[in-house]
Amino acid sequence: MTKRAREILDFYRSENAGVLSNLARMINHGRLAGTGHFVILPVDQGFEHGPARSFAPNPPAYDPRYHFALACDAGCNAYAAPLGFLEAGAAEFAGEIPLILKLNNHDLLYDEKDPAPAVTGSVKDALRSGCAAVGFTIYPGSAASKVMYEQLREIAEEAKAHGLAVVVWSYPRGSGLSKEGETALDVVAYAAQIAAQLGANVIKVKLPSAHLEQAEAKKAYEANKVTLEPLSARVSHVVQSAFDGRRIVIFSGGPKVSDDRLLDEVRAIKAGGGFGSIIGRNSFQRPRAEALKLLGTIMDIYAGASAR
Amino acid sequence: MTKRAREILDFYRSENAGVLSNLARMINHGRLAGTGHFVILPVDQGFEHGPARSFAPNPPAYDPRYHFALACDAGCNAYAAPLGFLEAGAAEFAGEIPLILKLNNHDLLYDEKDPAPAVTGSVKDALRSGCAAVGFTIYPGSAASKVMYEQLREIAEEAKAHGLAVVVWSYPRGSGLSKEGETALDVVAYAAQIAAQLGANVIKVKLPSAHLEQAEAKKAYEANKVTLEPLSARVSHVVQSAFDGRRIVIFSGGPKVSDDRLLDEVRAIKAGGGFGSIIGRNSFQRPRAEALKLLGTIMDIYAGASAR
Amino acid sequence: MTKRAREILDFYRSENAGVLSNLARMINHGRLAGTGHFVILPVDQGFEHGPARSFAPNPPAYDPRYHFALACDAGCNAYAAPLGFLEAGAAEFAGEIPLILKLNNHDLLYDEKDPAPAVTGSVKDALRSGCAAVGFTIYPGSAASKVMYEQLREIAEEAKAHGLAVVVWSYPRGSGLSKEGETALDVVAYAAQIAAQLGANVIKVKLPSAHLEQAEAKKAYEANKVTLEPLSARVSHVVQSAFDGRRIVIFSGGPKVSDDRLLDEVRAIKAGGGFGSIIGRNSFQRPRAEALKLLGTIMDIYAGASAR
Amino acid sequence: MTKRAREILDFYRSENAGVLSNLARMINHGRLAGTGHFVILPVDQGFEHGPARSFAPNPPAYDPRYHFALACDAGCNAYAAPLGFLEAGAAEFAGEIPLILKLNNHDLLYDEKDPAPAVTGSVKDALRSGCAAVGFTIYPGSAASKVMYEQLREIAEEAKAHGLAVVVWSYPRGSGLSKEGETALDVVAYAAQIAAQLGANVIKVKLPSAHLEQAEAKKAYEANKVTLEPLSARVSHVVQSAFDGRRIVIFSGGPKVSDDRLLDEVRAIKAGGGFGSIIGRNSFQRPRAEALKLLGTIMDIYAGASAR
Amino acid sequence: MTKRAREILDFYRSENAGVLSNLARMINHGRLAGTGHFVILPVDQGFEHGPARSFAPNPPAYDPRYHFALACDAGCNAYAAPLGFLEAGAAEFAGEIPLILKLNNHDLLYDEKDPAPAVTGSVKDALRSGCAAVGFTIYPGSAASKVMYEQLREIAEEAKAHGLAVVVWSYPRGSGLSKEGETALDVVAYAAQIAAQLGANVIKVKLPSAHLEQAEAKKAYEANKVTLEPLSARVSHVVQSAFDGRRIVIFSGGPKVSDDRLLDEVRAIKAGGGFGSIIGRNSFQRPRAEALKLLGTIMDIYAGASAR
Repeated sequence: MTKRAREILDFYRSENAGVLSNLARMINHGRLAGTGHFVILPVDQGFEHGPARSFAPNPPAYDPRYHFALACDAGCNAYAAPLGFLEAGAAEFAGEIPLILKLNNHDLLYDEKDPAPAVTGSVKDALRSGCAAVGFTIYPGSAASKVMYEQLREIAEEAKAHGLAVVVWSYPRGSGLSKEGETALDVVAYAAQIAAQLGANVIKVKLPSAHLEQAEAKKAYEANKVTLEPLSARVSHVVQSAFDGRRIVIFSGGPKVSDDRLLDEVRAIKAGGGFGSIIGRNSFQRPRAEALKLLGTIMDIYAGASAR
Repeated sequence: MTKRAREILDFYRSENAGVLSNLARMINHGRLAGTGHFVILPVDQGFEHGPARSFAPNPPAYDPRYHFALACDAGCNAYAAPLGFLEAGAAEFAGEIPLILKLNNHDLLYDEKDPAPAVTGSVKDALRSGCAAVGFTIYPGSAASKVMYEQLREIAEEAKAHGLAVVVWSYPRGSGLSKEGETALDVVAYAAQIAAQLGANVIKVKLPSAHLEQAEAKKAYEANKVTLEPLSARVSHVVQSAFDGRRIVIFSGGPKVSDDRLLDEVRAIKAGGGFGSIIGRNSFQRPRAEALKLLGTIMDIYAGASAR
Repeated sequence: MTKRAREILDFYRSENAGVLSNLARMINHGRLAGTGHFVILPVDQGFEHGPARSFAPNPPAYDPRYHFALACDAGCNAYAAPLGFLEAGAAEFAGEIPLILKLNNHDLLYDEKDPAPAVTGSVKDALRSGCAAVGFTIYPGSAASKVMYEQLREIAEEAKAHGLAVVVWSYPRGSGLSKEGETALDVVAYAAQIAAQLGANVIKVKLPSAHLEQAEAKKAYEANKVTLEPLSARVSHVVQSAFDGRRIVIFSGGPKVSDDRLLDEVRAIKAGGGFGSIIGRNSFQRPRAEALKLLGTIMDIYAGASAR
Repeated sequence: MTKRAREILDFYRSENAGVLSNLARMINHGRLAGTGHFVILPVDQGFEHGPARSFAPNPPAYDPRYHFALACDAGCNAYAAPLGFLEAGAAEFAGEIPLILKLNNHDLLYDEKDPAPAVTGSVKDALRSGCAAVGFTIYPGSAASKVMYEQLREIAEEAKAHGLAVVVWSYPRGSGLSKEGETALDVVAYAAQIAAQLGANVIKVKLPSAHLEQAEAKKAYEANKVTLEPLSARVSHVVQSAFDGRRIVIFSGGPKVSDDRLLDEVRAIKAGGGFGSIIGRNSFQRPRAEALKLLGTIMDIYAGASAR
Repeated sequence: MTKRAREILDFYRSENAGVLSNLARMINHGRLAGTGHFVILPVDQGFEHGPARSFAPNPPAYDPRYHFALACDAGCNAYAAPLGFLEAGAAEFAGEIPLILKLNNHDLLYDEKDPAPAVTGSVKDALRSGCAAVGFTIYPGSAASKVMYEQLREIAEEAKAHGLAVVVWSYPRGSGLSKEGETALDVVAYAAQIAAQLGANVIKVKLPSAHLEQAEAKKAYEANKVTLEPLSARVSHVVQSAFDGRRIVIFSGGPKVSDDRLLDEVRAIKAGGGFGSIIGRNSFQRPRAEALKLLGTIMDIYAGASAR
């Protein structure tokens, strides 16, 4: 166990040995094992966006086993998916990589202004599938946010009692926010704080823009001269907003972008003290060899010498 | 056990021996036993459309026992019905054909824009009736879809724990979709994916048209040159969308059509790698002798030599 | 046990011996014992319409014991009432007549467009009161129909597991239907089918008019030349719609009408193969002697020589 | 479904369709499918007698999968084993042969005068393993018999509620009986009756000798001139003792004997109206080819033309 | 994942992905990772024999954390202890080594002829402590064996449903056996079989002597020429007795012996196809440096080139 790994586990002193052990499984797996950095492969887009939008760019990815193999071969810290996708490979790949069962999911065939995902898996499903953690999405800003917060609290309580870690996707959206506001710095920082307050062990947020959404927040940012540029400063602010860096905060990439931009973002995440990246579409929507190469480059950046 | 039967069972490695055994019962029953193709007789129309619309064209079909006998004599792989209809013959026909208890049903006396069926049977009902599987309908696209997804998840967990297979009717409808969109290729493929993600062992969808409903999906279909014609290509795409062909996907016929069109559709399903047909109204709304003849012809097509 | 009684019991082969035994108690009780015909006295009007509307025309009927005695003296097959009314005589009349506890009831002090009755009794109440069956009302066509269907399913499962028969009042109403539609032939037949699908052993419906409510159904009735006249043909169609005559279907009289009309209806029910009548207001809203005379005449009709 | 299969199912009219369906699976499987005769392979000797005594004569039999394959290839009606042995092949052989999970087992490392087996499996284990039935052993004559009877009653209730058939090994032993008495005709007939009274669908007993154990019984046998010879007459008496032939009674072979004696016994079972044989040690304690040949000969005898 | 690791996991096809994943954690941890061999450190002697008998020879071992560190530093596959001892280090060493919570334990302050351990932990304790498996002791040969078998069955069902592996200490003792009989070859082989039948994933037994305890077994060993010498042949026989080598069987060392004898035993275990050793007193009752050296030598033997 590296010093950094031990340091991170020490953030979670109130968690039981089971949760610590499963956090350690993710910290100490793959190419970034022990560095305190994370690259996680999530594949819930089949459910969230539909199969063709997700997999048509790289048809082998229609097969759930493709993603297990990709995550293993790339040396990711963990692989996250909804129940059906996860079960389709969990036995075959048992023991190969830490798994995160995404317990709620949302589809776009009925799109709502104030969405709330359906609960599509249980803590018991995660245990019998050999997962290290459960994943849960909340939409702060949605009129339905309270429902999600309360579901999360109950699931977190049950998951932790059974030794599972809790990973929260905290993605602001809904009628409380403008479209631009969904990635505004004040909003993303606030979303990270809410996830931490709800007991998240690992928090996933989107990379924040320099926009400030809420008037009252804007005043505070300006009065206190919170730095908005460059991106690494915003990453720092979000990490600070999650209990002063004492929660694992990971940034998601969103839609497929140019490699240069993606790598710049990774450098900014690292420079800002972010814990890592969750890379879905940018990895599985290209041919496998290219994906492995890109993920390798990303991990090189995270593994490289740095202030931390 | 044929090689293809074994191959199909291997898709379901995470299921317990009970679920595998009940899948095998359906795979290995009737005229298509062991071929990996399926013709299933479902009779829920009495509940879904009312008795006269369903049975007046062929009055002997008012008697629930008529359908058991038809499914047996035609050599179908399984027979599916709601609780009342199923119980009305289950003891008399015990051991004659694998049964699927449809656990939720919807009627048209109160029609909603965003419908959700009532839960009209339980896993325990299925077990005491000797069923091989439970059936459940979801309506992706309905504002009530989340309720159905969550009911399905709980029922699937209970059914599988008791060794029953799970068959999902995934029929898009509701205020999220246009009427044409209900059978649009992108929507049907998405519906198949959702059913698979929710743990369905067998997925029933409608035959897709070449229409594309959702703007974002349309872009992906065009950018990735997903083939829209002929029908067999669309069948292929739907099967691919259900975990790359690793879930049994069966296509439903819908309202009574001309025999020629129906047989052309069956040929397209087979050519596209679909697993089979669910033939309700097209079989029981004609005299028994004609129904047996038609079902025989359909099975001949599925049993014929082919690429698969 | 008469041949016809045995024949009717054979419709229910999937039921346990307890349910069969309680069905047999109703079949073989009273003046119509063994004929396969039924006249049942239901008195839920005190709850459903209020006491004065129900009992002021014949004040002795305010006393719950009045109805037990009337049903016994008239030789009815069974007596049905809500919990309070039933408990008020169950001990005193124990063993005198098969009892049906109506488990849900609706009052008019708060009237809804889409009503759902309150559940006012339990299976356990029925058992400790010595009942042969539980009764349950559903309103197909109501926006709340799903709630009632799901309640019925659970109650039917529990009742049958404890050996009680299940009697369903299937009375279409609610915002899905026009007022005329509530007794339309297609709607009543559909309501009978739904009750049978939900596991009803005995089904109560209103006598159908020749009106056809739903456009799609109307097409089917016309295309298949379903006979709409006379009333006995409509009775036949409803009985056929309840599993081809393999469920006991009983017709209710509704508001007090002239004796001639009532007796004509009884003749039509018998001619059409209906199983009997449920006669409430037409019996207890007149002096006891007249009521006994009328019920006697009705039973004479049912007991008379006939095609069946 | 043959006439005889239907006739046997009709013995069990009080069972639900699930139990009937699972009985039908055993009746209609293997080389004796539909004849109403049974040859079942039970392998619980590893637990009951220890591994070397059971498998050293034919070492491939140490592998649990050996027995699945033997039962399948020989065309047995079913295969029975304790949980560990059954789970070790249930997934691999799913759908190949009806399975019976033996729910209680006894070992000889602590041998008691009045033994009672340990409960080593559950109804839920049987369901998730895809079994058609549960098996349970009772020792009438043991001081602990009451415990076993009560366990059986509870297990039978739960098993049947979930659609599983109940197979009872009724093997008299314990301080209430002499060694010779364990197979005395009066005792074996009594044991068959007790199993039937406790709700057994299928009853396994040992072949009875002409000895009569109990003084009061002896008087009755003599007074009523019950025929004691030949063996087929004793078989008839035992079958009669199980509800006059209306329960499936199967005879077990016991320790390995000469083939001639075994085949004579099979002929006597058939001649006496016994339903079949349970052949354990006589099949798996010899090389596979010889076992297949012997089982083939036994099945030939049962399949041969006969009075029944 | 090595070929041998995959091969071993394939023995457990009926287990869910969670159990497979936890078995893989033990297979793939420590110096013997991936070899299919195991050295496990168990420390339950404080409970079983008292603290001074256990730890006075090496006083640092009084501290529970001593044993975690020893198991980690030696590169063991897993560490096993009762609840108190395990909780005393589980958080501090979270993620360092797979843990096995011993769920029942026995002390010597009240010693019985027919002992049964007390259940001192739960499946939930194991989950919140981050364990990979639960451990359970049975004493075949004890008059109380049935109680232990039934406790084990229930615990195994619960543990596996939650994804935990099941490790069984099968140690014959009690009034059914002579002292010499406790390690007799026939008895140890029988004990291994019983553990496998009860669903054990990993089986711990004592090294067998060439003594044969039971008369009937002795006949079978002689008749079938089961080889009794050398020790490796006896190991082979025990491994064969646990489902023909398809269960992980590990041998325990018992009391402290000379290093030469211990290493010879390890060589015999390896030569006989045993899966490994459980080394308690022989490791922690000597100074830490010596213990690490000895465990290193043992692992060298298991890791060395061999037939397997």
